[in-house]
Amino acid sequence: MARIVKKFGGTSVGDIDRIRNVATRVKKAVEEGHEIVVVVSAMAGVTNQLVDYCRKAAPLHDAREYDTVVASGEQITAGLLAICLQEMGVQARSFLGWQFGMKTNNVHGAARIEDIDTAALEACLKGGRVAVCAGFQGIADDNRITTLGRGGSDTSAVALAAALKAERCDIYTDVDGVYTTDPRIVPKARKLDKITYEEMLEMASLGAKVLQTRSVALAMKHGVRTQVLSSFEDKPGTLVVGEDEIVEQEVVSGIAYSRGEAKITVVGLEDRPGQVSHVFGPLADENINVDMIVQSASEDGRSTDVTFTVPEDDLRRAVKILEGNKKDLRFRDLVYTGDVVKVSVVGVGMRSHAGVARTMFDTLADKGINIQVISTSEIKVSVIIDAEYTELAVRALHTAYGLDAPARA
Amino acid sequence: MARIVKKFGGTSVGDIDRIRNVATRVKKAVEEGHEIVVVVSAMAGVTNQLVDYCRKAAPLHDAREYDTVVASGEQITAGLLAICLQEMGVQARSFLGWQFGMKTNNVHGAARIEDIDTAALEACLKGGRVAVCAGFQGIADDNRITTLGRGGSDTSAVALAAALKAERCDIYTDVDGVYTTDPRIVPKARKLDKITYEEMLEMASLGAKVLQTRSVALAMKHGVRTQVLSSFEDKPGTLVVGEDEIVEQEVVSGIAYSRGEAKITVVGLEDRPGQVSHVFGPLADENINVDMIVQSASEDGRSTDVTFTVPEDDLRRAVKILEGNKKDLRFRDLVYTGDVVKVSVVGVGMRSHAGVARTMFDTLADKGINIQVISTSEIKVSVIIDAEYTELAVRALHTAYGLDAPARA
Repeated sequence: MARIVKKFGGTSVGDIDRIRNVATRVKKAVEEGHEIVVVVSAMAGVTNQLVDYCRKAAPLHDAREYDTVVASGEQITAGLLAICLQEMGVQARSFLGWQFGMKTNNVHGAARIEDIDTAALEACLKGGRVAVCAGFQGIADDNRITTLGRGGSDTSAVALAAALKAERCDIYTDVDGVYTTDPRIVPKARKLDKITYEEMLEMASLGAKVLQTRSVALAMKHGVRTQVLSSFEDKPGTLVVGEDEIVEQEVVSGIAYSRGEAKITVVGLEDRPGQVSHVFGPLADENINVDMIVQSASEDGRSTDVTFTVPEDDLRRAVKILEGNKKDLRFRDLVYTGDVVKVSVVGVGMRSHAGVARTMFDTLADKGINIQVISTSEIKVSVIIDAEYTELAVRALHTAYGLDAPARA
Repeated sequence: MARIVKKFGGTSVGDIDRIRNVATRVKKAVEEGHEIVVVVSAMAGVTNQLVDYCRKAAPLHDAREYDTVVASGEQITAGLLAICLQEMGVQARSFLGWQFGMKTNNVHGAARIEDIDTAALEACLKGGRVAVCAGFQGIADDNRITTLGRGGSDTSAVALAAALKAERCDIYTDVDGVYTTDPRIVPKARKLDKITYEEMLEMASLGAKVLQTRSVALAMKHGVRTQVLSSFEDKPGTLVVGEDEIVEQEVVSGIAYSRGEAKITVVGLEDRPGQVSHVFGPLADENINVDMIVQSASEDGRSTDVTFTVPEDDLRRAVKILEGNKKDLRFRDLVYTGDVVKVSVVGVGMRSHAGVARTMFDTLADKGINIQVISTSEIKVSVIIDAEYTELAVRALHTAYGLDAPARA
């Protein structure tokens, strides 16, 4: 008998039939003797409808009221799933954020969990009942409803698993696990049985949208064994775990790519101390997240070029800010494009293996792909390339690192 | 400056434009210097959708989960109205049942209000802000959401007005007040400026669907001056008040009718003690509400006929129960019909005026309408007649009691 937290996303609870399907899965786990806490999202489409209402009511609206409105989506699903479970003879009850003690700070719309008072849930589990918790929501110390930000139900689930010392947190979604890369691009991509928190974190922040980055970070912090699996098929998914659980670590676990990038080069920036902070300070003030940065001396030796990436959605704003500061910054030109992609090679094994970056550079060079910006961390190498080479690059790298699935007989 | 509770029903908050219209009304009252508490229903159609979800999930479902699901409707409206008010520069915040201290018993789906802890609302009003309360919902002592039953938002509003010692409770709806009778039948019907609680209570329970019976009873108990008015027109409605506020009382204030009635006659019931309770006991056991009862000795002097009315929806069940007990009851025959209507003449003035019932009987006789059952209370006379005479009877009585509006020039 184990205690397991199971989280079901919006498409998994999209209508009553799907909610009933979820109930069947939960029932099975109960019959296997497990203690089950379920975390649910709003039915697919409901949150968008509620957000739309708020925007129509006022373009800029009080985040506390927004939270009150949108939290009702998860409230509805939680009640309905409890009803479906009871109908199947499974004892269950719903809990809203304020009922299961999900205490957050008061940053409405993007609240952080501060503490979970598990007394009510422990009592429910002790009574042999399934606890169905509304995800995404909490309560601030002024007794008002908060939400954790879009996709926050993953975070609710992992936080609950940590607080309840659950053996595992199962995240049910519409894919059946984490792959070595996007199977839509590389048909030979393999589903991973296990992946480390660190790798998952890199993959998630690099565009693999299986798990919210924030929930992975939380799972890593608390050592919550987290499984990503399909709510529509009945087979194991991918376990996200600590390195110690992975006996034989591959050097590279996966290839990720992220299309929503844009590249900006500030050409001929006067080369004097503090210039770089004058470039990035105003961008940071406007909450534009600068990712990769490369600085190179220009030929005359008196000026410098700075190239960096920003989210494509922020490109226009970033350019406008830089041009507005042209007088102060004294640069010669601004070159920018949204037609780039970030491709990354991820693997904790590369810590102890030299030559990983070199394989990447050689592989891309072989295919005639020009690398525009490079950044590395302990467990990943990322490059910016022309967007039109995306598929070519990902496939070549997938093969180069030996990730292709063996051909089927 | 007065403290006023304003309640807006589902059609009044049916979409964002209408919610904005409500906000405009509230803003006006605030600018006039009043302290305002608003009570809102769910947007028209939302509650039905949520109820439908619950029914689809399971025909018989846990009322606690049902309450959790359906209470979200009012939650959404409360948040949206607060947003619209803020957008217009009116300081406002939403309160859910558990946030404004609406404590109820734990009869989920039809909870009764036990106490309102007004501390949070008083603090809100003291801060110069409008409190927007979700109607229809409360919290039981086990910390679970309850609802007051369909249409319960009227009751929420009146209860809040009583607890907050408000000067008045305004119930905004899609009609502009209480009329002497249904204007669809009698074009000469007049809107009443004032009506007493007792009369309103009779009118409400007799089918005038302007106010929930339960909310009128509560207003009467606590002496809450309640106004029924239109949310779409800007003019005074009808005030429901104590008798002392009405200087010159008409003998008859209104004519009500109720179509959803059925009549049953048990013919040739053996005339021995306790027989009547043997007729009605089993009906009460099955929660069938028997309204008017007439007993008459039959010709042979040894048996009796009992005629009574039940809600038309319960007719089939009632007949089935009686026929099932035919052996015990030993009656000769059962005669029943749903083709009847209850027409009532209501007025507190009739307490001190003789002849009100006689005018009714004479008027109906003049038109050739046969009276099948009669019942009277201190302030009303009700009769059951053939349904096809409904309009004729109502119009004739409206004229007979001098209620017709003067012809317009």
